[in-house]
Amino acid sequence: MNYDRFFVDAIDALRRERRYRTFAEIERDAQHFPRAVWHSPGGPRDIVVWCSNDYLGMGSHPKVVEAMCETAKKRGAGAGGTRNISGNSHEIIMLERELADLHGKESGLVFTSGYISNATGISTIVKLIPECVVLSDELNHNSMIEGVRQGGRQKAIFRHNDLEHLEELLKAAGDRPKVIAFESVYSMDGDISPIAGICDLAERYGAMTYLDEVHAVGMYGPRGAGVAERDGVMDRVDVIEGTLGKAFGVVGGYITGKRAMIDAVRSYAPGFIFTTALPPAVAAAAAASVRHLKGSQAEREGQRAQVAKVKAALAAAGLPQLETPTHIVPVMVGDAKACKMASDLLLAEYGIYIQPINYPTVPRGTERLRITPTPFHDDALIAHLAKALSDIWERLELPYADRMAESDLLRRTAAGQHAPIPLPMAGG
Amino acid sequence: MNYDRFFVDAIDALRRERRYRTFAEIERDAQHFPRAVWHSPGGPRDIVVWCSNDYLGMGSHPKVVEAMCETAKKRGAGAGGTRNISGNSHEIIMLERELADLHGKESGLVFTSGYISNATGISTIVKLIPECVVLSDELNHNSMIEGVRQGGRQKAIFRHNDLEHLEELLKAAGDRPKVIAFESVYSMDGDISPIAGICDLAERYGAMTYLDEVHAVGMYGPRGAGVAERDGVMDRVDVIEGTLGKAFGVVGGYITGKRAMIDAVRSYAPGFIFTTALPPAVAAAAAASVRHLKGSQAEREGQRAQVAKVKAALAAAGLPQLETPTHIVPVMVGDAKACKMASDLLLAEYGIYIQPINYPTVPRGTERLRITPTPFHDDALIAHLAKALSDIWERLELPYADRMAESDLLRRTAAGQHAPIPLPMAGG
Repeated sequence: MNYDRFFVDAIDALRRERRYRTFAEIERDAQHFPRAVWHSPGGPRDIVVWCSNDYLGMGSHPKVVEAMCETAKKRGAGAGGTRNISGNSHEIIMLERELADLHGKESGLVFTSGYISNATGISTIVKLIPECVVLSDELNHNSMIEGVRQGGRQKAIFRHNDLEHLEELLKAAGDRPKVIAFESVYSMDGDISPIAGICDLAERYGAMTYLDEVHAVGMYGPRGAGVAERDGVMDRVDVIEGTLGKAFGVVGGYITGKRAMIDAVRSYAPGFIFTTALPPAVAAAAAASVRHLKGSQAEREGQRAQVAKVKAALAAAGLPQLETPTHIVPVMVGDAKACKMASDLLLAEYGIYIQPINYPTVPRGTERLRITPTPFHDDALIAHLAKALSDIWERLELPYADRMAESDLLRRTAAGQHAPIPLPMAGG
Repeated sequence: MNYDRFFVDAIDALRRERRYRTFAEIERDAQHFPRAVWHSPGGPRDIVVWCSNDYLGMGSHPKVVEAMCETAKKRGAGAGGTRNISGNSHEIIMLERELADLHGKESGLVFTSGYISNATGISTIVKLIPECVVLSDELNHNSMIEGVRQGGRQKAIFRHNDLEHLEELLKAAGDRPKVIAFESVYSMDGDISPIAGICDLAERYGAMTYLDEVHAVGMYGPRGAGVAERDGVMDRVDVIEGTLGKAFGVVGGYITGKRAMIDAVRSYAPGFIFTTALPPAVAAAAAASVRHLKGSQAEREGQRAQVAKVKAALAAAGLPQLETPTHIVPVMVGDAKACKMASDLLLAEYGIYIQPINYPTVPRGTERLRITPTPFHDDALIAHLAKALSDIWERLELPYADRMAESDLLRRTAAGQHAPIPLPMAGG
């Protein structure tokens, strides 16, 4: 039997639908963040990265890099085992304490990635609660959907950030145990969930809350614990999940919460138990980043200032940005081919790297360029970005803000991420 | 509703069954591998780690540590994004080429862990093959079982390393596409699968083969590509999966195979797409390790020599080791409580760290101490180990080799790992 054809067919299908993706190969320059070298077909080229999730540039922070190097020299490059079998380093224990403290929780548990923290965290939690119903926001990330799916419990999907719909579903679930799974900052639209309102409902109907803050930790709240901290509701959320791979600049994921819950996940979650622990060097680097951002406002203030300037510059140019209350600046294109072309031109001709965001990461018709300004995107870079986008909009005859209705900008619920896409293909 | 009680109950259940686990907190000393400091209840204590999966001590190799540090300084501590969105570093591309070359395959694909490479790799592959049947060895690792389960295809479990049973099941599957999933070295019994025989059957019945070499890469074969290389059958295996977190000493996982298969997994696997890429520093460290072990025999030869000495010393002491053709030396205890007690005494009184391996990682009645000698466990350490084990065997009145029948040593199929354990609790 020719097995190769199955894979060739699968790839061909993506090409036909214009969903085949190539990854830009880059070398980030830690000394000149957010600059990088792009290995283009024609050779190495200097570029500026405008789509990184290293939102605060902490991956290049001297404290973080030094913690990684010093620890690698002292402890080696890896952990050498699972947490249970010789891989339970002092550094990962210190990191877990740092994270529990960050979120004001009793305990923390670190996973190899944010993806795994959601997938194995949610599934284990709901499996440990007999008969529970999971209420999940329709725009939750793939990793949360995986967690809900692998948990095997009855689920109910509520319309994005819709408290009324959530309340309906909570009522319908009756006396059964209930877990509400949602995010604070939704990464593709850059909007924020009504955490306090969800906590009100959770308390009224006796539900447990699981909040993904991966696009918020480091950046929101006085100590960078996220939107729940900013909103003063951190203590009302049962489980706060976060990542070490975005604003904290390293890699890995975690959950925080009550001691017994964390201990149960530690003891029962296959995706935690059966995997090699994060290296001490990674844990130490992440802890250094978390610790720094607890005390320093400079990065958060710098980011807010530059984000505001980017939004103002794009507005002045009439470009169709989705208005967001966050650091995420989506500029709408509304067509997969045009979005890819705009991205290609930006990279090749302007040295600006912004990955196109197409279906199924976002619904068809809402294809976009997703811009994430950091404190290190200075005013000159912002001016260059605005000019480049204006040029491209003209050349490709893309729709401007005044010609794009709000309804076109936000047809996001059309392609609910919970819909049964047997083989998801998206940009994460 | 009091959700805490669900988690308290879950923990209590483990305590009642004596399955509750505490992790030893350690600081490995890269300058004096395999030595470490154990944070004992009474304060820091010097110990020797005898249960690490850093099988060759490569985590402490100067080339590996230097690659990690140099790259962290140049590229930062993290990747900054998913592979698709700005996280596709030059270093990870180089690593994938190194791995493809190692296994003589067209392409390689790196994941955040070996766990994820199996879970999302297997599930994606079998989802892309319509109507396929998955034939899975009953002792496959949890990550492979997860991959099979998430793939959602019909599965058939064959008795461990049993070619006759596998052939029966292949026949029964008829003309449908078939994927055989198995390992080369099984980590808890240290035995090796008949790869050539499985390839014979795969060819006869038109099946695809997926081989997990995580406990073999770096250590077997002239270039450290694993048992399939050693046996001269690497080109007959369709997919070879490996880890960067054991003998290569770092963290991460990968698959290698034909270009179209790799490209399809790259394009369709959620656990690959929706997660932050491994940091360039990790990729560079892993590549340095793989490259070194392609050329150097010293580590493999040193390991073989010290493993032989450990086995001889234990045999001379009459200790009941499971005879293995590999670097894994299981010493059978056969009782969960005694196994834990032996491990505790070794650590507290002899400074020897060997984690107890209990149910469900292994079947009840086959509880064991799993010893993994590295090239750096010198003759004096081996003598100390043999003496310590002899003392403990006497003090705890544990069974010696002559009193333990082979049938007691090897009741491993009794608790088939594929059995529906809703909440697995094991040592990875």
